[in-house]
Amino acid sequence: MGGHEVSESPLPSLVLDGTSRIVLLVMDGLGDLPDPAHGGHTPLAAARTPNLDALARRSALGRLLPVSPGITPGSGPGHLGLFGYDPLEYQIGRGVLEATGIDFDLQPSDVAARGNFCTVDGEGKITDRRAGRISTEVCAELCAELSKISVPGVQAFVEPVREHRFVLVLRGEGLSEAVSDTDPERLGEKPLAALATATDGEATGKLVNKWTAGAGKVLADKSPANMLLLRGFAKRPSWPQMPETFRLRAAAVAHYPMYRGLAKLVGMDALPVGPKIEDSIATVAENWGRYDFFFVHYKYTDTAGEDGDYDRKADKISEVDAAIPGIIDLDPDVLMVTGDHSTPAIMAAHSWHPVPFMLRSKLGRADGCESFNEIELTKGSLGTFPAKEAMALAMAHARRFRKFGA
Amino acid sequence: MGGHEVSESPLPSLVLDGTSRIVLLVMDGLGDLPDPAHGGHTPLAAARTPNLDALARRSALGRLLPVSPGITPGSGPGHLGLFGYDPLEYQIGRGVLEATGIDFDLQPSDVAARGNFCTVDGEGKITDRRAGRISTEVCAELCAELSKISVPGVQAFVEPVREHRFVLVLRGEGLSEAVSDTDPERLGEKPLAALATATDGEATGKLVNKWTAGAGKVLADKSPANMLLLRGFAKRPSWPQMPETFRLRAAAVAHYPMYRGLAKLVGMDALPVGPKIEDSIATVAENWGRYDFFFVHYKYTDTAGEDGDYDRKADKISEVDAAIPGIIDLDPDVLMVTGDHSTPAIMAAHSWHPVPFMLRSKLGRADGCESFNEIELTKGSLGTFPAKEAMALAMAHARRFRKFGA
Repeated sequence: MGGHEVSESPLPSLVLDGTSRIVLLVMDGLGDLPDPAHGGHTPLAAARTPNLDALARRSALGRLLPVSPGITPGSGPGHLGLFGYDPLEYQIGRGVLEATGIDFDLQPSDVAARGNFCTVDGEGKITDRRAGRISTEVCAELCAELSKISVPGVQAFVEPVREHRFVLVLRGEGLSEAVSDTDPERLGEKPLAALATATDGEATGKLVNKWTAGAGKVLADKSPANMLLLRGFAKRPSWPQMPETFRLRAAAVAHYPMYRGLAKLVGMDALPVGPKIEDSIATVAENWGRYDFFFVHYKYTDTAGEDGDYDRKADKISEVDAAIPGIIDLDPDVLMVTGDHSTPAIMAAHSWHPVPFMLRSKLGRADGCESFNEIELTKGSLGTFPAKEAMALAMAHARRFRKFGA
Repeated sequence: MGGHEVSESPLPSLVLDGTSRIVLLVMDGLGDLPDPAHGGHTPLAAARTPNLDALARRSALGRLLPVSPGITPGSGPGHLGLFGYDPLEYQIGRGVLEATGIDFDLQPSDVAARGNFCTVDGEGKITDRRAGRISTEVCAELCAELSKISVPGVQAFVEPVREHRFVLVLRGEGLSEAVSDTDPERLGEKPLAALATATDGEATGKLVNKWTAGAGKVLADKSPANMLLLRGFAKRPSWPQMPETFRLRAAAVAHYPMYRGLAKLVGMDALPVGPKIEDSIATVAENWGRYDFFFVHYKYTDTAGEDGDYDRKADKISEVDAAIPGIIDLDPDVLMVTGDHSTPAIMAAHSWHPVPFMLRSKLGRADGCESFNEIELTKGSLGTFPAKEAMALAMAHARRFRKFGA
């Protein structure tokens, strides 16, 4: 008997205060496929992982569906699910992610877009969507010049992110996020005009096109970065915050801007941290008394997967493995190890495949799995379940939920 | 953090009449955790269960999620799921459960609350929330005295349940269930005033407080039961009934009032039955021709778990095991054995862990599991699935569903 309507989730009303600690360790793009060229193993199975395997023997295991079967998530939905938010309900524009990730103080009425410097030929057609990945320094110089462009009725902030990437933030009266991308996302085409995707986007689209025309003049002699592309126009969403929803003081330990930004949108503090997994563990240790929940993000598994580099992905997993004792030494009440999605090396892209997941807690069952990899954890007791439910499991094992119903 | 709407379930339109018999045997709080002090086994694994194990070898096995991952259900949600009702949609107040369980003829406009006699000190602070678990006889005497309290505008029924527990039912015009508990659920505090939880609860809250003040005078010299606590104010819900929804003449074979009450709310007849599992089997046998569906409830596994008594829980499971042949002799078309939730002995409390489940039917697959316990049934073909879907499985195996669609 299913229903007419689904009631609000009871979870928020069940939340208890507590002193327990939860650690969520995310190896970005962790999940993979067996590679016939590597003995039919996945990078996770091939990696040297004595510590993850020992953890698996004491954990409950399963596989996460980031969104739903067959859906390949971007970084936003992949992480929002892990944070306990339904990624179909909580959707976010790329511009906001990027802006928040560089600590830009986005106002509720601002509209942000992600920018790429690109290279165009004499006819204005795109020859490199990343302008040869110019250095972050060059990016910053170009952004400074673009900041001088004046368009009546709007203030435009242009902030460098990393390499060829920047953020454009428009501030003014009545701005809308209903504006299409100028990035055609393929070579050999000219940048597109920004068009309204709903009636209220018309004025903003015109402002964007005026600004882009000005930018084209500034960049004309700046080859390889002689043009730019904009996508993901968006306003800052107003979402439930983890410190209220879950009563957790939540910290993000993430080096990459996008993941910091994402974490801040759900109310986490983004702690300053270096690029290595050892830096992350040290940061967690230093802040152990100040937070209840730590989201530790490790990017390089995904990067290797995206590059189709099986061996490097396995190596990066081994690097994380070596840092696992540092987390266990802190004795978290709940330790979850997983990914935000799969990035199979043989696909060199994100995919829809379920993601390895394990949860260690004194109150968990050990499933008798011998190791942590895609095949072994089919034996796990957690089965295949939506990523958005993992946070509820963590809260339960941390004894931060009261009983539901009489 | 879930979604907006779902489509109607097609199940009710698929239901067929039939002559098949379904037995649902519920060992309350069956699921458990491995206990390092007991060789890392769960009570179910440690119990002597030759009959359950033989059944497992001929059954399809899996694990039920009572509500959703991480949610620890009370008895109400735990059972409603097993009866095929979404426990998030069909929520019930404790007062109604208790009132229905003692065969109190609750009217649609009545408001019921669960009562506990308690002990307070000279300052009125609670020193024992259960008044030393007074006998049911003393409880009945106190209830008779409290029934004499007169509050203008409302009729108050006070009915004993068991030991320190009673039911208060208010009958009158315009009563509301939007009233807060007077039970602070902790020691060292005074009983709370009943407050309105919505505007329409104000008048009822005042009536409750007047009645409680009167009760305080009656009980003042009745130590250890010198005060009372009320919680779970609720009206009788009007839910789909199993005889209509599933076209099953449904019988509850449950000794404890709460489970009888719950079963009656979904349209089951609650048959008179003694406390032992043999009593239950005899009652099923006597009524075999009169009903299509039997819900057999066994309480003592949960009681042992709640008491943190691993050995007793294992013994109680063994007692149920010895009665299994009596059910099999009746040759039900579908026999399900499961629990309503987990009550791990090492936690001495209900928990969120998935619950062992097996279904035997001539139309079922045997999964090759050698025994019935938490670890072995990770090999089961049914996987981990919501308890509310078990009833549909039973209906299918009982050939009581037609084909869906052309």
